[in-house]
Amino acid sequence: MTTPAGPVFTPFEVLDVRFPTSRDLDGSDAMNPDPDYSAAYVVVRTSEGESGAGFVFTIGRGNEVAVSAIRAVEELVVGRDVEETLADLGGLWRRLVHDSQLRWLGPEKGVVHMAIGAVVNAVWDLYAKREGKPLWLLLAEMTPEQLVALVDFRHLTDVLDEARALELLRAGAVGKQQRIERLLDEGYPAYTTSAGWLGYPDDKVERLVAEALAGGFTHLKLKVGADPEDDVRRVKMVRELVGPDVRLSVDANQVWDVPDAIAAIERLAPFDLTWVEEPTSPDDILGHRAVAEAIRPVLVATGEHVANRVVFKQLLAAGAVGVCQIDACRVAGVNENVAILLLAAATGVPVCPHAGGVGLCEVVQHLSMFDFVAVSGSTEGRWIEYVDHLHEHFVVPARVEGGRYLAPRRPGAGAEILPEALATYLYPDGPAWAAGR
Amino acid sequence: MTTPAGPVFTPFEVLDVRFPTSRDLDGSDAMNPDPDYSAAYVVVRTSEGESGAGFVFTIGRGNEVAVSAIRAVEELVVGRDVEETLADLGGLWRRLVHDSQLRWLGPEKGVVHMAIGAVVNAVWDLYAKREGKPLWLLLAEMTPEQLVALVDFRHLTDVLDEARALELLRAGAVGKQQRIERLLDEGYPAYTTSAGWLGYPDDKVERLVAEALAGGFTHLKLKVGADPEDDVRRVKMVRELVGPDVRLSVDANQVWDVPDAIAAIERLAPFDLTWVEEPTSPDDILGHRAVAEAIRPVLVATGEHVANRVVFKQLLAAGAVGVCQIDACRVAGVNENVAILLLAAATGVPVCPHAGGVGLCEVVQHLSMFDFVAVSGSTEGRWIEYVDHLHEHFVVPARVEGGRYLAPRRPGAGAEILPEALATYLYPDGPAWAAGR
Repeated sequence: MTTPAGPVFTPFEVLDVRFPTSRDLDGSDAMNPDPDYSAAYVVVRTSEGESGAGFVFTIGRGNEVAVSAIRAVEELVVGRDVEETLADLGGLWRRLVHDSQLRWLGPEKGVVHMAIGAVVNAVWDLYAKREGKPLWLLLAEMTPEQLVALVDFRHLTDVLDEARALELLRAGAVGKQQRIERLLDEGYPAYTTSAGWLGYPDDKVERLVAEALAGGFTHLKLKVGADPEDDVRRVKMVRELVGPDVRLSVDANQVWDVPDAIAAIERLAPFDLTWVEEPTSPDDILGHRAVAEAIRPVLVATGEHVANRVVFKQLLAAGAVGVCQIDACRVAGVNENVAILLLAAATGVPVCPHAGGVGLCEVVQHLSMFDFVAVSGSTEGRWIEYVDHLHEHFVVPARVEGGRYLAPRRPGAGAEILPEALATYLYPDGPAWAAGR
Repeated sequence: MTTPAGPVFTPFEVLDVRFPTSRDLDGSDAMNPDPDYSAAYVVVRTSEGESGAGFVFTIGRGNEVAVSAIRAVEELVVGRDVEETLADLGGLWRRLVHDSQLRWLGPEKGVVHMAIGAVVNAVWDLYAKREGKPLWLLLAEMTPEQLVALVDFRHLTDVLDEARALELLRAGAVGKQQRIERLLDEGYPAYTTSAGWLGYPDDKVERLVAEALAGGFTHLKLKVGADPEDDVRRVKMVRELVGPDVRLSVDANQVWDVPDAIAAIERLAPFDLTWVEEPTSPDDILGHRAVAEAIRPVLVATGEHVANRVVFKQLLAAGAVGVCQIDACRVAGVNENVAILLLAAATGVPVCPHAGGVGLCEVVQHLSMFDFVAVSGSTEGRWIEYVDHLHEHFVVPARVEGGRYLAPRRPGAGAEILPEALATYLYPDGPAWAAGR
């Protein structure tokens, strides 16, 4: 590293922020009965006073481990030249992900990989603010060559290499300007999970389903997997509530083994499901494929716990998933998600992001909007997940109207939390936590 | 949790211990040029003064993240009843691995999973010391029913369920006593990696190969993957040095993409290789299978970076590996390795553990010895890796004579480091580090 002449990255601000969501059973599912939605939150700063925010999303316990991992990544960034870094964000990604010592702690998975994602996303936030553009537009206006330079093709080339990625992006660029305008006019389709948490009683589900339909949603998702009888009862109830024309998907949050998944989905199939999400372990590529083959035409969806682009590569190329659920905060940030969008395009699988939690809607919408404008060119069979909580804590909250995400127009990548929320929910000393003790 | 009547677990001691191995390029390979072998070391204690040791092995930077993860696991153990815990170690494993909040940080992979492994191994060390037996013998003397109770079959049952595991263990128990005696007499075959690090000059490799042969080793492994021409030159040189009757394997430490791996191994195959280790990403099950099919009869080996039993399940069942390389400190400890040994037995793949680093030989030897005595019943086509450094820091150092590991006879699971080594290599304040600054 040469001594930088211009502005450099200065020490990070890293905060342990937790929202006490378990008090109301928001977000309860078969695998996660009592989450406290949390963020290991990082602010990357430069010596000229610019800043960008990113975070690791967790569900409570262990958020401090993610904080520690962000601190471990910090030393690879602080002191680096800002201009050089922003001019080669593919290089930044490689330097962080392939740091030989940190790599041992994954490799490319778990807390360290998620921490790199938070830092990479924060640098993108800073870059988008400097350019005065929302992230989706910043990405959409890059050339195919610039986009390909963001991606590390290591371990992908048996399915997707740089030449094929360039072809896809050149094809995807045709009609880009019209799609930008269409997106600004019409937004992007959403589906909602707000009605279907396992911990909610029937009357609450009923009320929330009615609200979702009134709000313009045409695709709802329910949590299943705790009890097979009760799953059938609840899916039947919701199908009757919504009628035949609204799409219904279910989410088992990994609780089934492969044979159980196939049996359980067989019982739910009469209620006309669009997809079954996380039927089994997110690491089980061959298991997902076996489920996918058994349950056609119901699609298998997964991704929110898929560790990296190499696992996505296999799920997509093997026909193990019919829906690719990227997550803004599981893999190593924007660059890796661009790789995954390209893998999905190369294999013809639609991308329907995982969102919810805290801030996931705010961040991941940019990636789907970029996908529409510059990669897939389509919103057909594609929806961004929407869950209606905690948006009020963001500087640029996600906005969904008439069942569609409105395209963000303000600069940045969406991760910035309001200062008062950071102060209130700081763990363990913020007033939200001090009051609960 | 009811209030315990008897002894309970008390707060852990957790230490960041690092050995400055990068100063001599010990352990250098194509992916890891400058490791400082390190341990996030945990001592689990009871209110009656018993203790057990375990660790996460890392290669330097980020060891403090593993320390933080062990601290996150600690609150799930401290205060628990010791007798109840030791009577249901399968229950302990499930409680730690399936903790819904910590699980989000993997799931079942990366730093948190490795930290759970350290804690689980430490509890086993305590248990073995209390029983006055080395871990391999403690496990070998358990009944098939007791062993099956250690294993979590979730997400495995499409390949291995409890009934099939019981069958395997009942078959494996036949002749157990004779094998215990044979193991105590003859030890277990080893292979050595000490001669083949990438950073070593030719004359050092030559000297170390001669020493290995003089020491009775009949199987050597070389690091490859940095430069194809140089790989051919070095493998040819070593094949000529050892003659046709000594086995030679190579290790690429994940640097190749699938097509590159196949091409590179084709060039090395004339030198009669036993296996090629880590030809590509450890997450790439389908990639490993493609390599395995292309390079027969050379075997594909992997495992030291395989995150968990679900990934091993697929590698084994899909014919993607011909050698199963368990690691003592990557997965969640003894219980998960018992599951992997059973998966290997069910699919007929020999187990040849990864070792080296710091303490990996000391711990993993117990698992292969248990496998020989009570599961596979064979040492045919099986060797435990041996690397000759840092053993002097252990209370019960691994002992290899005549190319064979001698079976440990002292109680425990092998992870305990001498107090003077802990003090010297404590990071960053121990004298070994303070002196280098």
